[in-house]
Amino acid sequence: MRGWGWGEDERAPALPAGAEQLLASELALQRGPAVPPVALDEVSLPDRALPDAVLGRLRSAVGAEHVLDDREARVTHAAGRSYPDLVRLRSGDASSAPDAVVLPGSADQVLAVLKLCSELGVAVTPFGGGTSVVGGVDPLRDGFKGVITLDLTRLDRLLDVDAKSLTATLEAGMMGPAAEAALAEHGLTIGHFPQSFEHSTVGGWLATRSAGQASTGYGRSDELVEGLRFAAPAGELRVAAGPATAAGPALRELLVGSEGVLGVICEATLRVRPAPGHRRYEGWSFRSFEEGAEALRVMEQGEASPDVARLSDEEETRVSFAMSGASGAQRLATRYLSARGHAGGCLAIVGFEGSEDDVERRRQRSSALLRAGGGLALGTRPGKAWLEGRYAAPYLRDHLLDRGVLVDTLETATSWSKLVSLHATVRAAITGALGSRGTPPVVMCHLSHLYPSGASLYFTYLAQQQRDTALEQWWAAKQAASEAIVASGATITHHHAVGRDHSQWMRAEVGELGLELIRAAKERLDPAGIMNPGKLLPVSPTEAEAEAGRSPRPSRGSSPSPAQSAS
Amino acid sequence: MRGWGWGEDERAPALPAGAEQLLASELALQRGPAVPPVALDEVSLPDRALPDAVLGRLRSAVGAEHVLDDREARVTHAAGRSYPDLVRLRSGDASSAPDAVVLPGSADQVLAVLKLCSELGVAVTPFGGGTSVVGGVDPLRDGFKGVITLDLTRLDRLLDVDAKSLTATLEAGMMGPAAEAALAEHGLTIGHFPQSFEHSTVGGWLATRSAGQASTGYGRSDELVEGLRFAAPAGELRVAAGPATAAGPALRELLVGSEGVLGVICEATLRVRPAPGHRRYEGWSFRSFEEGAEALRVMEQGEASPDVARLSDEEETRVSFAMSGASGAQRLATRYLSARGHAGGCLAIVGFEGSEDDVERRRQRSSALLRAGGGLALGTRPGKAWLEGRYAAPYLRDHLLDRGVLVDTLETATSWSKLVSLHATVRAAITGALGSRGTPPVVMCHLSHLYPSGASLYFTYLAQQQRDTALEQWWAAKQAASEAIVASGATITHHHAVGRDHSQWMRAEVGELGLELIRAAKERLDPAGIMNPGKLLPVSPTEAEAEAGRSPRPSRGSSPSPAQSAS
Repeated sequence: MRGWGWGEDERAPALPAGAEQLLASELALQRGPAVPPVALDEVSLPDRALPDAVLGRLRSAVGAEHVLDDREARVTHAAGRSYPDLVRLRSGDASSAPDAVVLPGSADQVLAVLKLCSELGVAVTPFGGGTSVVGGVDPLRDGFKGVITLDLTRLDRLLDVDAKSLTATLEAGMMGPAAEAALAEHGLTIGHFPQSFEHSTVGGWLATRSAGQASTGYGRSDELVEGLRFAAPAGELRVAAGPATAAGPALRELLVGSEGVLGVICEATLRVRPAPGHRRYEGWSFRSFEEGAEALRVMEQGEASPDVARLSDEEETRVSFAMSGASGAQRLATRYLSARGHAGGCLAIVGFEGSEDDVERRRQRSSALLRAGGGLALGTRPGKAWLEGRYAAPYLRDHLLDRGVLVDTLETATSWSKLVSLHATVRAAITGALGSRGTPPVVMCHLSHLYPSGASLYFTYLAQQQRDTALEQWWAAKQAASEAIVASGATITHHHAVGRDHSQWMRAEVGELGLELIRAAKERLDPAGIMNPGKLLPVSPTEAEAEAGRSPRPSRGSSPSPAQSAS
Repeated sequence: MRGWGWGEDERAPALPAGAEQLLASELALQRGPAVPPVALDEVSLPDRALPDAVLGRLRSAVGAEHVLDDREARVTHAAGRSYPDLVRLRSGDASSAPDAVVLPGSADQVLAVLKLCSELGVAVTPFGGGTSVVGGVDPLRDGFKGVITLDLTRLDRLLDVDAKSLTATLEAGMMGPAAEAALAEHGLTIGHFPQSFEHSTVGGWLATRSAGQASTGYGRSDELVEGLRFAAPAGELRVAAGPATAAGPALRELLVGSEGVLGVICEATLRVRPAPGHRRYEGWSFRSFEEGAEALRVMEQGEASPDVARLSDEEETRVSFAMSGASGAQRLATRYLSARGHAGGCLAIVGFEGSEDDVERRRQRSSALLRAGGGLALGTRPGKAWLEGRYAAPYLRDHLLDRGVLVDTLETATSWSKLVSLHATVRAAITGALGSRGTPPVVMCHLSHLYPSGASLYFTYLAQQQRDTALEQWWAAKQAASEAIVASGATITHHHAVGRDHSQWMRAEVGELGLELIRAAKERLDPAGIMNPGKLLPVSPTEAEAEAGRSPRPSRGSSPSPAQSAS
């Protein structure tokens, strides 16, 4: 992973053909010199706070070669991959770097490290692929003597496959492609493909309740979990795998989504499926977002949904077309759509995976409902294009950051009856917040992840970056969108999780007594409070802040010292 | 509900034609005079322990007419509907009766009563329909000044319907038929039909993670929950309804299945579906349980399952035939099966609900897979018979109790790869435990509630009752079966819940740290520990009991005093 951005240099796609023109016309962005990230050896790094004696004990627990405190290890574990993370890293600020990176090789070693850190008063930040976009892996000291990052990528084995019951037990540090490759040898797939797939881990998916792009068909990551092996400072928890139980509260659901705050997922037994022999992805057009949303609702409630279903709004459709550049094919497509009354409409992608028969059977049912709902079939070309570019957006973000563009995404979910109004409300909130700062944004959205009762909305917005106040600018948009989401009764996150960036809205999400339930679990599993401080649970606002009506969230831009930012 | 048994007199079906002969031939049961239950006015009832002042404050909270301490109210709330409950009640023992029955009329009143009881040190047993078969509503004092039963049946309103999102918000005390009738006016159904449907409540379903007979199609009750309003002594929790969220641990899953131990479910937002216009239930025959189980697995994993799918083992099939009596139709069916190599085989029922098109489309896919798996189609007659008798078993149990028969059911779930061996193991355990007491049983089982990774096994067993040691006899079988289930790594309950009868196996189910997590939640929500004492969480064995290797479970037969039995 590039230290200041996404993925690997040699795999980074070029900026799309129409992007420069779009940035100039929509964001009034002058084509200037790129703003490259600071080189690794110029990044500023705080002194290591942990004494050698502590490192020595950690080395005894996992082996000397698996405790790293060199410059590269600390910088590459200093942050996740959120917009503010990248702004800091690109500017050469790795002040949030952990004192050391510890790589346990087994669940027993994880347990040993957690017990040791609990005893020594050292904060622990669990780290899978490090792709959090909500500050979930930012190492915060939070008053502790020091902080280590617990890198789980050595837990990388497929432990068991039960082909008859269609379950597999995997270690938590397996990366997406490795997990899929190991299961492919058994003819199986998990079917979990988040945008971060190439660089995220099984444990990271579950700790954040990640939903993959094909969750409509394969289910969310949390729906795939049957069993867990979980390590906490207080000991080990095992949730036995099984299809269903009525034996009390589902403790599995307390551990899944716990974001490292209660402990560490070491192994998981997941439902798997036969690997699909055939894939078909298609494009559809709708005259409006509302028309498309209604068609997707009818399809989903008619149990006729494909595995992937997503509908871009008018703005996302327009910008996607513009980004691709004005090719002949594009002009042809635009003319085709205009002729059928679909000018300025919305593009949907639907994708089917399975046996050829199965795909064809399901496709016929879906297509009939989409057509009845006003949809116009566009064939497989847009589907293929989407499939090819499905993991490219984070690379594109790096290009945009190079050019001084604020770019972020946020997401929520709500019931079908509230979706269209929520879409308008959140759009307006982002537009207003950035417009009032003199940087009017482009705000795009797609509807995806269908459920019988509702769906997710995923917003992407771009604006001219305010160089000197980049984090304040970002936070203004983030806060406005989040307040709009909460005021609408929607969830603060559908699949990005809570981390630092959403923690202050957890009170609105689950109520004070709900927070108390999470705290009660934390006190039992992590009595010293060392696990991933500053994440998931809100930091209570000070009275002064509350009075002033200001956000209790520490500004990571203005107070970059970890000690301060965790206050 | 009959005070000593199930349902209403006028609706009780007669003992099936072949039953008497079967009991004589299989259980060596002499046809003697029936053993009728003790009449209500002869039931022995303990003195009311709560002083008038406490009743006065409860009356202020819910209205004087909604606090009942008359004989009938106390007896009818003295127990659930488990075999030991009925043995005690039929013998005239209502020593477990609550001091009073309190019927709140709103969620706010529930909260007020819980706060009051917490302040006064009065134990509270939440009570929906009172159909628990695991001792879940037995009012236990557990060292408190007294115990009230909180009857929730006045919370009986349909609060909201969102037809576009297919969700409905219902109060927890709505009985099954009332809930379905109210939704039918909107053309909707919950589709949750447990055997107790006619006498159980929405809140009871969720508090116990009930799975209805059609859970293969409609989902378990816990899978249908989107939102909750929950009252605990420490306050109110609201889980906002929504299709999905990644905002931390799923607190909803801590409240669902909490069996009244953490508090009371007052309202729930459930997923609903369009009411089916068409139903088709069919019979199938398989040569063996193993063959049938394999066919159901392939069907379920092929996403081709009907809404109801159940497969009786050889013994359940044989006994069901015998129970129906030796009619001409039966003889014909037997001859038909023999001619096709299915003599001594297994009967399966599959049922489809939906639009006529939908049913036919799904039926064709299922049928093809069942046939390929060795199934022989028997047409709709067995399906209709099952559908008509689906709620009759508890009535039949009363007839058997009249005749001095021990009859109980128990259930579990496991993965497809372990199902057939678990079936044999549990059968052997029950057979061994009762055989060694000189009362060899008939043990029957069916596989039902299909999931991609496994299914449920539901056992019914009959034996000659040992009149003087009826509860010890029952406990011997229960304990043997439960130990066999736990040793096999299966869950102690798939849909009956934990209650008193399974609580000692919760340690095996979730581990010591898992128990600590439930206790942590309880301490936060119910600091005085008044909520449904003696349920869900294991009572720790005393050292003496542990040394003697005896069960820590209090024998309800030999120590009928509530104070003792809660020790």
